[in-house]
Amino acid sequence: MIPDFAAIVGPGNVLSGTDMAPYLEEQRGLYQGSALAVVRPGSTKEVAAVVRACAQAGIAMVPQGGNTGLCGGGVPDGRAVVISTERLNRIREIDSVNFTLTAEAGCVLSTLQAAAEDLDCLFPLALAAEGSCRIGGNISTNAGGVAVLRYGNTRDLVLGLEVVLPDGQVWNGLRPLRKDNTGYDLKHLFVGAEGTLGIVTACVLKLFPRPREMATAMVALPDPAAALSILAAARAASGDAVTACELIPRIGVDLCVRHVAGARDPFDAPHPWVMLIELSSSRPGGLGEALESVLADALERGQALDAVIAESGEQRKALWRIREGVPEAQKKEGGSIKHDVAVATSRVPEMLERCTAAVEAALPGVRVVAFGHLGDGNIHFNLSQPVNADKQTFLEAWKAMNRIVHDIVADMGGSVSAEHGIGMLKIEEMARYKSPVELDLMRRIKTAIDPQGLMNPGKVLP
Amino acid sequence: MIPDFAAIVGPGNVLSGTDMAPYLEEQRGLYQGSALAVVRPGSTKEVAAVVRACAQAGIAMVPQGGNTGLCGGGVPDGRAVVISTERLNRIREIDSVNFTLTAEAGCVLSTLQAAAEDLDCLFPLALAAEGSCRIGGNISTNAGGVAVLRYGNTRDLVLGLEVVLPDGQVWNGLRPLRKDNTGYDLKHLFVGAEGTLGIVTACVLKLFPRPREMATAMVALPDPAAALSILAAARAASGDAVTACELIPRIGVDLCVRHVAGARDPFDAPHPWVMLIELSSSRPGGLGEALESVLADALERGQALDAVIAESGEQRKALWRIREGVPEAQKKEGGSIKHDVAVATSRVPEMLERCTAAVEAALPGVRVVAFGHLGDGNIHFNLSQPVNADKQTFLEAWKAMNRIVHDIVADMGGSVSAEHGIGMLKIEEMARYKSPVELDLMRRIKTAIDPQGLMNPGKVLP
Repeated sequence: MIPDFAAIVGPGNVLSGTDMAPYLEEQRGLYQGSALAVVRPGSTKEVAAVVRACAQAGIAMVPQGGNTGLCGGGVPDGRAVVISTERLNRIREIDSVNFTLTAEAGCVLSTLQAAAEDLDCLFPLALAAEGSCRIGGNISTNAGGVAVLRYGNTRDLVLGLEVVLPDGQVWNGLRPLRKDNTGYDLKHLFVGAEGTLGIVTACVLKLFPRPREMATAMVALPDPAAALSILAAARAASGDAVTACELIPRIGVDLCVRHVAGARDPFDAPHPWVMLIELSSSRPGGLGEALESVLADALERGQALDAVIAESGEQRKALWRIREGVPEAQKKEGGSIKHDVAVATSRVPEMLERCTAAVEAALPGVRVVAFGHLGDGNIHFNLSQPVNADKQTFLEAWKAMNRIVHDIVADMGGSVSAEHGIGMLKIEEMARYKSPVELDLMRRIKTAIDPQGLMNPGKVLP
Repeated sequence: MIPDFAAIVGPGNVLSGTDMAPYLEEQRGLYQGSALAVVRPGSTKEVAAVVRACAQAGIAMVPQGGNTGLCGGGVPDGRAVVISTERLNRIREIDSVNFTLTAEAGCVLSTLQAAAEDLDCLFPLALAAEGSCRIGGNISTNAGGVAVLRYGNTRDLVLGLEVVLPDGQVWNGLRPLRKDNTGYDLKHLFVGAEGTLGIVTACVLKLFPRPREMATAMVALPDPAAALSILAAARAASGDAVTACELIPRIGVDLCVRHVAGARDPFDAPHPWVMLIELSSSRPGGLGEALESVLADALERGQALDAVIAESGEQRKALWRIREGVPEAQKKEGGSIKHDVAVATSRVPEMLERCTAAVEAALPGVRVVAFGHLGDGNIHFNLSQPVNADKQTFLEAWKAMNRIVHDIVADMGGSVSAEHGIGMLKIEEMARYKSPVELDLMRRIKTAIDPQGLMNPGKVLP
């Protein structure tokens, strides 16, 4: 018996039939969801009432933000109700003295970035989906992105949370405090829990002074180890102002130039690797010089083979295009098998070597396109199909390739899901790579907070 | 029946009788502990065996590091065994490329600071007890200190943990990863849990580039609000390089000058407030100029009444002496009633006003010495006894004063224990100020992880 949601949220905010389609589609086409209903509460109180009704009826709930997740964490299985946060879209407070912003979970990320900028502040979370993802989803998946090196993951940007618990009670942990040592840190339990412990309805986020200066370079490298030396030197020389440090292999540059409109290799020679390094600071003056001096040094030592520094915003965009175009270019090359792995940054070169050798041995002709957030040790170790191979046949190797790559990464003490989460996509990996002790701890926590198991069932925990 | 600990750790590492004294004394004299035994395991394996033996025998355990806590969190009640981490004192690994240090829980904080420095890195946690506190205790209490503004609390410096759980199982979460989104973030549950959920035996900590330049100033202010304006301006102008921002009231300076050897007021006039602001950066050049320009601007606007910038290491130390001498000076003025509160930084001026008015009304002649980490909104709102009053009579007002101050702070959405934790000292405050929903969540977690309730019973949770 489905509860009378219309009585809580109004009939216009209970969707059924084909109206539910946008909430059931998964953007990469990996899953097709179905749901009992889609409910769109307009306040925390309404969320609480909807959850209470579901809990009393024993109906499962799938919280959903912008539906931009990459692991199927927001896909319902037919027996659940989707609770969309999209109407919780108010900025409740912004405090430029405390450097905090209090927002509801349904606020679109780019809206929050803009609100911070209006006060001459920075909200540093930045990722590809920023125009449509919602902050509650970013929090629930502990989103990463391109500025983690400097500002941390979403987790590190959250000071407080308001959460509707699985029984409909509201936990008000919406604190704007930099220091609070009064008991267990509950907010960190809900961040990254992918909606399996409750529904985040609002948050207090950290702001930072807005950068006034930026220095961006693309550097040609003999190997990934050289990038790590340059990164360490740049961190020291810049006062830890390195905001992004991205690695791109030769093939990534080539595919980009081939497929992405306006993408151009800034170098004359086909160097084996390139890195994109970006520094930013709210302190004007000297950042470009610091970067130049680091690069001059690296050129002299042979750690850099060539380097270009962006002289304008246009040039900066052109350099980023090479990095951001890689996934798009890969799509145009046929099938891709993806990985989102992390190891200690010092071990990225070893990880790249071992994984590349292993997948090439297992699938001759496979093209390794390993790129991404070197500064965090987080590499999207993606594979493009062999030239002229059949896409479908290649994609059938997805699980086998995952097994090879993840086994090596796990052996190196790494993570098989660095920034995208688990959802449904990686639930088997949890069973394989997490220790029984760790899985048991997670299950005990899940049971303690959601004894009925109604919150986003089938996600995260195997 | 006490288990045969000697068989696990060797007879020399099981203490009884008067040998236990150093582990039972509480440094402020607030509590006198007693214990069944003090056990000093020398490895994680030995910790696990000791815990397993206690769990099987149903004996309570009190984990203890350097025994420097300020809330009685490490004091045993007679029915418990103290498990000291002091022999777990190895640095397991240090990786200057990944900017991480892996250490056992019993390492003394200053040892870790020195080890980082040897590799030209910084481990930024810094606090008064750094020469004797141990990192496991810092983690278990989520220690704060003087560099939180820039580098975060201890929590923010921890990448991975190894924990012996209440049943003696070992959770190996000792990961050196910047990104890892595979399930619930368990480490944040143990950080700040004060040993009530398990015993931290090792950790992976973040390192940073070592500062090459420092700029320190003491600024005379008309009021605390002016300090916040100067702080915001300094954050922006320095590229967010403000490492410390400490507030000291007139009386704090006066008591320091009176009681602390070598302390000197750097100003000619008796200004109502002073702030100590320190910037540091690994990027050489320009920091002093940035600070000078901020201060010149503040002087012009009347936000600063006067300012001195340290021209040498000696001068810097002299300025810090004024700040660090306050607790010592207060001790020499007779009884002190202490608070460790935090509110949003923007609301510190209001908090100071409200609390001062309330305690002065309740206890005429009381002298408010409110000083501390303004940059984090964390004020040690301490009270010195009225001049010539009886110390003991004054100290009898401790709870009444706590009630007044904490009620106001709680009303303002603040924290009644910003950096010292709960231990036994503030356990009544937990019952008073935490919502039933939050206490219930904490209890459910405690029961899920420590169903027998043997880990540091009587601490944190009311």
